[in-house]
Amino acid sequence: MKKEINCTKLNGERITESKDKVVIEEPLSIFVNGRHFVTTMISPQMKKEFVIGHLFSEGIIRDVEELESLQIEESIANVIISSPLKVLTARKLIVSGCGGGTSFLDESKLPEVSSDLKIDAYEVFEAVKSISGSDLHRITGGVHVVGLFDKESRICISEDIGRHNALDKVIGYGLTENIDFEDTFVACTGRISSEMALKCSVANIPVVASRGATTSLAIEIAEKTGLCIIGFVRGERMNVYTNRGRIITPNFVQIPPHRPISSSRGHAVRIRKQGLLDHPYRKNLLSLAFYRSLRHLCFSIRLRSCRKEKRFSAVLKARPFLSGTPPLR
Amino acid sequence: MKKEINCTKLNGERITESKDKVVIEEPLSIFVNGRHFVTTMISPQMKKEFVIGHLFSEGIIRDVEELESLQIEESIANVIISSPLKVLTARKLIVSGCGGGTSFLDESKLPEVSSDLKIDAYEVFEAVKSISGSDLHRITGGVHVVGLFDKESRICISEDIGRHNALDKVIGYGLTENIDFEDTFVACTGRISSEMALKCSVANIPVVASRGATTSLAIEIAEKTGLCIIGFVRGERMNVYTNRGRIITPNFVQIPPHRPISSSRGHAVRIRKQGLLDHPYRKNLLSLAFYRSLRHLCFSIRLRSCRKEKRFSAVLKARPFLSGTPPLR
Repeated sequence: MKKEINCTKLNGERITESKDKVVIEEPLSIFVNGRHFVTTMISPQMKKEFVIGHLFSEGIIRDVEELESLQIEESIANVIISSPLKVLTARKLIVSGCGGGTSFLDESKLPEVSSDLKIDAYEVFEAVKSISGSDLHRITGGVHVVGLFDKESRICISEDIGRHNALDKVIGYGLTENIDFEDTFVACTGRISSEMALKCSVANIPVVASRGATTSLAIEIAEKTGLCIIGFVRGERMNVYTNRGRIITPNFVQIPPHRPISSSRGHAVRIRKQGLLDHPYRKNLLSLAFYRSLRHLCFSIRLRSCRKEKRFSAVLKARPFLSGTPPLR
Repeated sequence: MKKEINCTKLNGERITESKDKVVIEEPLSIFVNGRHFVTTMISPQMKKEFVIGHLFSEGIIRDVEELESLQIEESIANVIISSPLKVLTARKLIVSGCGGGTSFLDESKLPEVSSDLKIDAYEVFEAVKSISGSDLHRITGGVHVVGLFDKESRICISEDIGRHNALDKVIGYGLTENIDFEDTFVACTGRISSEMALKCSVANIPVVASRGATTSLAIEIAEKTGLCIIGFVRGERMNVYTNRGRIITPNFVQIPPHRPISSSRGHAVRIRKQGLLDHPYRKNLLSLAFYRSLRHLCFSIRLRSCRKEKRFSAVLKARPFLSGTPPLR
C-alpha cells in the first residue's frame, strides 16, 4: 500500500535529503466480455472486491451470480458476465474529484515540461498559505482550492468540490487570459494524484505544491515530465519530491541525515534531535529554546521581507476571480 | 457556491433542529461538435474556464484558437472545435477519487432504500472513531478509509486513494460474503458526494456517516432514495442531514433553536450559549464548568457501556480484511 521514495525535506531553514512514504496508486482496466469498460486509478489491495463492487454499484451486475468468471492479472481485470447487453448502457460520467479521460499513461506519450522557472521556497510557503484561508472551505468544509501564481502575484484562484475541476478552471482561466504557463506555478489544498501531475505537465506548469500528500504514480509521472512536486507545505515545512532544482533555498542550511528513517512522524522527531546536535548552542535546553525562537523569528522576517518586495502584494488583495468570469477572447 | 439546508445537530447529548451550509454540486455535460464528451460533477462557478481547461488538459484542444464556439446553458456546455476527429480518441478513464459511469441522475431511475434499520447515535460515533485511526492514513496522509458495519460488529474495512474505490471495495466484499446490506451502515473518512450517496442507495445500504462534509446533490439524492446522511461526525458531534428517523437518540435532550443561525461556527458558539441558558446550574461559570465535565463524563460512560454490551467487540479486534482477500463464492 505504500512505497518509500527519496525526497528533500525543508524545515524552518534546514534542508535534509531524506526518505518519505507515499501511498501507491495504480491503474486497473476492467474488461467486460472482452470489451474495455473502464480504467480506474486505485490502491492495489482488494482488487477483486473492487471489481465486483464497482460493477454492482454501476448497475452492470445485480449479484455475484451474474459473474461467470473474473480474472485479475496485474493491471487488467477480465470479467465475463451473463448479460452482455448491459455494458452498452454505461455512460461516460466523471464524478467530483475527477479529471478523467487523460490517455497519457503510455510513457511515450507523456508531455515534457519546458521551463526555466526557479522559485524561492518562501514564495511556495506564501502561496499555499494564501489559498488555505478560503471562506467557503471554512464554512462548508467541502471544497478544494487551487491557485495559479507567477513570481510577481497571484493570477487566479478557484474553488470546486473536485480537485481536478479546480485545476481545470485555473488552467482554463490562464488560457483565456493568454498566460504563459511556463512562468507559473500551482498551489493547492488537496492531494497531488497522478492526474493532477498529468494536467500540470500537459499545461506546461513546472511546479505544483500542496498542503496534502502525493502518490507513487504522480511521482513517477513527474520524474518523466520534469514537473516539480512539493507536498505537505505546512507552516515552515515542505517535502520536495521531484526536480528539487526548481526550488531556490539561499538561506537554508543543509543537514545530513544521521540514520535511516522509518516513518514521517518518527522522522520529524529525529529532525528535531538532529537540530539539537547540529545547532551552535546545544549545551542546554534553555539555549535550545532561545535558538528555536530565533530561528522562527528569522523565518518570519524573511517571509515578511519576501512580501515587502511586493512580489506577493497582489496575493493580499481581494479576489476578483471568484465573483465573475472574464469574457472569452 | 453554498446552500442552506435543514439538519439535526447532535452535540454531546443535546439535539437541535438547525440549519447548515453545504457546498453546491451540479452536473455539467460537455458536448463537443454535437457529441456527448463527458458529464462531470462540479461546483457551479467558472464553468467556461472549466470547459476550456478540461478540454485542454484532456488533449482535445491545444489552445483557445481551436474553439470555434462555446455556449453554456445551465448544465449543458456545447462546444464546437475546429478538429472534430480528436474527440474520437478520448478514452474512458476514471481517476482516483472517482466512481464514474452511474446513470441514475434521471430521477425516475433512482433506486429506493428498503430497510427498517435504526441505529444508536453511539454506534455511529464508535464506528467513525474506529476507522479514523488508520496507520496508512497516518503515515502517508493520502488515503480514504471506508468501513462496513452492522449493529453487532465491523464487517469490513478498506483503504484506497479514492473514496469511491474504497466504498466499491466494501460493497464487493459484502457481495462475495452474502451480506444483507439492508442491516448495515457505512462509515467513512471522506466527503459524502452525490456518487457516494448513489452507490450506497444502489447497494441498499440505509445509512452513511462521515467525518467530512456532504454536498447539495448528495442530500437531494438521499431525500429521494431514503438514505440517511450523517456528516461531521467528530468527537461528541454529528449533523444528520436526511432521514433523521434512522438514528436512535434515547438519552438525548431536544433543545429548540433560539435564533436564526448564520454560520456553522457561529452556530456552535450559540449552541453553547443555549446550553448555558438551559442547563440546571446556570448561575455561575464554575458550575458551568462542572456541568460540562459531568456531561462529558456521562457521554464517555454511555459510549463505554455501548462497547461493553459487546455490540462493538469485533471493532476492537485485528483487521483480517486488509491483509488478504477471501475466495470468490
